[in-house]
Amino acid sequence: MKIVCDKRDIANALKTVLKAVPNRATIPILECVLIETQKNVIKVTGNDMEIVINTVMHGQVLEDGAIAVEGKLFNDIISKLGNGDVTIETDNNTFAVTIKAGRSKFNLPGRNAEDYVKMPALDKGFTFSVPQPLLRDLVEKTIFCAAVADNNPMMMGECLTVEGDKLTAVALDGHRIAMKSIILDRNYGDCTFIAPAKSLQEISKLMTGSIQDIVNITVAPANVVFQFDETIILVRTIGGDYFKFNQIFDAEPRLSIKAYVRDLLDSISRTSVMAREGDKKPMIINISGDIANLSVNSNYGHVEEELEIVHEGEDITIGINPRLLMDAVNAFDDDEVEIRFVNPKAPVFLMKEGIDSKYVVLPVNIN
Amino acid sequence: MKIVCDKRDIANALKTVLKAVPNRATIPILECVLIETQKNVIKVTGNDMEIVINTVMHGQVLEDGAIAVEGKLFNDIISKLGNGDVTIETDNNTFAVTIKAGRSKFNLPGRNAEDYVKMPALDKGFTFSVPQPLLRDLVEKTIFCAAVADNNPMMMGECLTVEGDKLTAVALDGHRIAMKSIILDRNYGDCTFIAPAKSLQEISKLMTGSIQDIVNITVAPANVVFQFDETIILVRTIGGDYFKFNQIFDAEPRLSIKAYVRDLLDSISRTSVMAREGDKKPMIINISGDIANLSVNSNYGHVEEELEIVHEGEDITIGINPRLLMDAVNAFDDDEVEIRFVNPKAPVFLMKEGIDSKYVVLPVNIN
Repeated sequence: MKIVCDKRDIANALKTVLKAVPNRATIPILECVLIETQKNVIKVTGNDMEIVINTVMHGQVLEDGAIAVEGKLFNDIISKLGNGDVTIETDNNTFAVTIKAGRSKFNLPGRNAEDYVKMPALDKGFTFSVPQPLLRDLVEKTIFCAAVADNNPMMMGECLTVEGDKLTAVALDGHRIAMKSIILDRNYGDCTFIAPAKSLQEISKLMTGSIQDIVNITVAPANVVFQFDETIILVRTIGGDYFKFNQIFDAEPRLSIKAYVRDLLDSISRTSVMAREGDKKPMIINISGDIANLSVNSNYGHVEEELEIVHEGEDITIGINPRLLMDAVNAFDDDEVEIRFVNPKAPVFLMKEGIDSKYVVLPVNIN
Repeated sequence: MKIVCDKRDIANALKTVLKAVPNRATIPILECVLIETQKNVIKVTGNDMEIVINTVMHGQVLEDGAIAVEGKLFNDIISKLGNGDVTIETDNNTFAVTIKAGRSKFNLPGRNAEDYVKMPALDKGFTFSVPQPLLRDLVEKTIFCAAVADNNPMMMGECLTVEGDKLTAVALDGHRIAMKSIILDRNYGDCTFIAPAKSLQEISKLMTGSIQDIVNITVAPANVVFQFDETIILVRTIGGDYFKFNQIFDAEPRLSIKAYVRDLLDSISRTSVMAREGDKKPMIINISGDIANLSVNSNYGHVEEELEIVHEGEDITIGINPRLLMDAVNAFDDDEVEIRFVNPKAPVFLMKEGIDSKYVVLPVNIN
C-alpha cells in the first residue's frame, strides 16, 4: 500500500476512529487502526469489539493495499508532523510501515490487515434519521443516569425507542431515571433498542454537525449502525427487554414546588460542601410555606440554606443524595423546574408542563 | 472573633495561603489556615513547615480574635458563595466557626489558634529587591533542572547568588544544569542561599505583578523571606555548600552548531515519539556538514529527522536523552541557540553570546 494524504486529513480520521481503539486490549491487534484502500478511497477503522468506527480519509492512493498499525503510536507520530503531505508506504511481505513527511522519516512495524477483526456485515433493519445536534442533546441530557459499572449490563445502557414520530431515550441506575423525547421529521413506525451508554457517549462527541447535518440510524437484531458525514459506527446492542419503569410515574403527588434552576443548583452545590467524600450524608429538604430549607449535617459540619419557591400542596421533610439531585436539575431543559413529591419514601419527580424531559430521583431514608 | 469581608477578598487570600497548606499533614493542624485579627488588620496564614505564607485579607473586624480552620473545607465553602459580604464568627470557648452569606449558613469546627505552628520571627539579614516578573522568569527558566526526588536535598533545591548587581540562579540534578542571571537595580554586595525548588515554584506562581511590582528578599541564616504586595513568604533554606559545578564550563569545545529553537524543538519532539515509556532509548545526533541528523531506534520503531544547522568545527555522533535536551532548548531565551560539543562522552552546552542563560546536558553512552 502507498498513499499520500494531507496531515490534517489523517489527524481528523485518527481522532474519529481512536475512540474505538483501547489503550490495552486482550487481543493486541485491537490496539491497531486498520487502514485500507478500496477503489481510490482510503478507509480507517477502529474496533474495540463493542463499537466499530469506520471513516473515510481523503488522499491519493498510489498503490492499493491494507495494513494494521498501532493506533496510539501512529497518532503520536501524525500529531507531531508539520502541516503538509504525508506519505505512508507498507512492505507487503514484512508489513513494515514507512511514514515520510518533510525531512522526517519513521519506520514502524505494522500487522497483517487480514488479522484485524472485521466490521460485521451491515444488516438491513429499521431505519430512521435525526439531526446530529438533537441526538447529541438527547444523549447528553439522559446518559448520566446510566450506571458506570453494574452487574446488570442493561443498567449501563440507554434505551432508545421510536414510536411514530417520537424518539425517547431512557437511562437509569438503581437510584434515578432520566427520560427525554424529541420529535422526528416524520412517522417511522415503532422500534426499540438498548445501546451501551459508553458507546453512545463516544458517538455523541463525534457528531459535531449542525441542525441540517443528519445521522441515519439502522437498527438490526444484534447491532445498531450510526451513519453521518463520512463515518459509519456500529454498536453492539444489549439484548433483552428493558426495565418496566413507566408505572413509577403513576404515583399521585401530594405537593409540588417550582424553583429557578440556577438558584436551586447554587443552593445544592453549597450544601453539598458538607456531604464530602467519606461522609456522604444526605441533604435534607424541608418544604414549608414558600421556603425550601436545604441542610446537611455531617462530621465536617452543618450547613443550612434557604431558597424561595412557589409551593402547592402539603409540607414535607425528605432526604436526598445532593449529587443525584444536582445532576438532574443541571440537565433540566428550562430555567425553571417543577419538583413533585409523594411522601418522604417515594420517588421525587422533576418535570415541567411543555418540557419533554423528566427525571426521577429516589429519596434517602432519614429516620 | 467576628469579621465581615467581601467574598472575593477571602477567596484571593485563601488562594494565596493554600499553596502552603498540605492536603494531608502528619500534624493535623497544618491542614488548617490561621485567621487572626491584629489592630483591625485581618491576616491569613498557611504553613507546611517548609514554607509559611502570610497575607492580608481586607475586611471589617467587629470583634478581635484568632482561629484555625480546615483550609480545604473553608475554601470549598467560600468558593461556592455568591458575591457579596461574608460574615465569619467564632465561639471563643468551643472554637466553632459560623460562616454566613446571603441565605446560607455554615457551622464547622475550628481549632484553637494557640495550637497553630507560628511563623518564626523574621530575622534581619541580607536584603535585595527584584521586579516580580524578572524573578518569576529566572525561576521558571531554571527550576525544571532541579531533581523532583533525590536523597540529596540540595539537588531538590535551587541556588540563588547575589554578586554585586547580578543575581544568578542555578539548578541541577545528576544529568543536567541550568544557570541564568539577571541584573539588579544596584550593587547589593554578595550573598548566596539554597531554597527548595518546590517552594520557589509556588512563590513564582504567586508573583503575578508587573515590572514595577517589586519583591523584597531577606536572607537570614536559616530561612529566606519574600515580601511582595501584602504577602510575606518564609522559606526554610537548605544548609551547606552548593555543588562546585563551575569547572564543567572550562572544557574546550571541538565543535558548535547553531539552530533555530522552534525547528529544533519540533525535530526533537518528533524523534522522541519512538523513545516512549518502557523503552527510553537515547536520541542519536549525528552532525556532519550543515545537517544534523536526529534519530531514535527503539522497540517501537525507527525515526530519522534532518535539520539544517550552521556548523563550525569537527563532526560528531552523540547520544542524548531527548526529553532533557528538549527541556533545555524550550527554556532557552532566544529564537536561536548555540550548542557546543567536546566529545561524545563530555557534557553538551547550550548557550549564546549575549544571552544570560546556559544549560548543560550530559550525553548518554551509545557504544
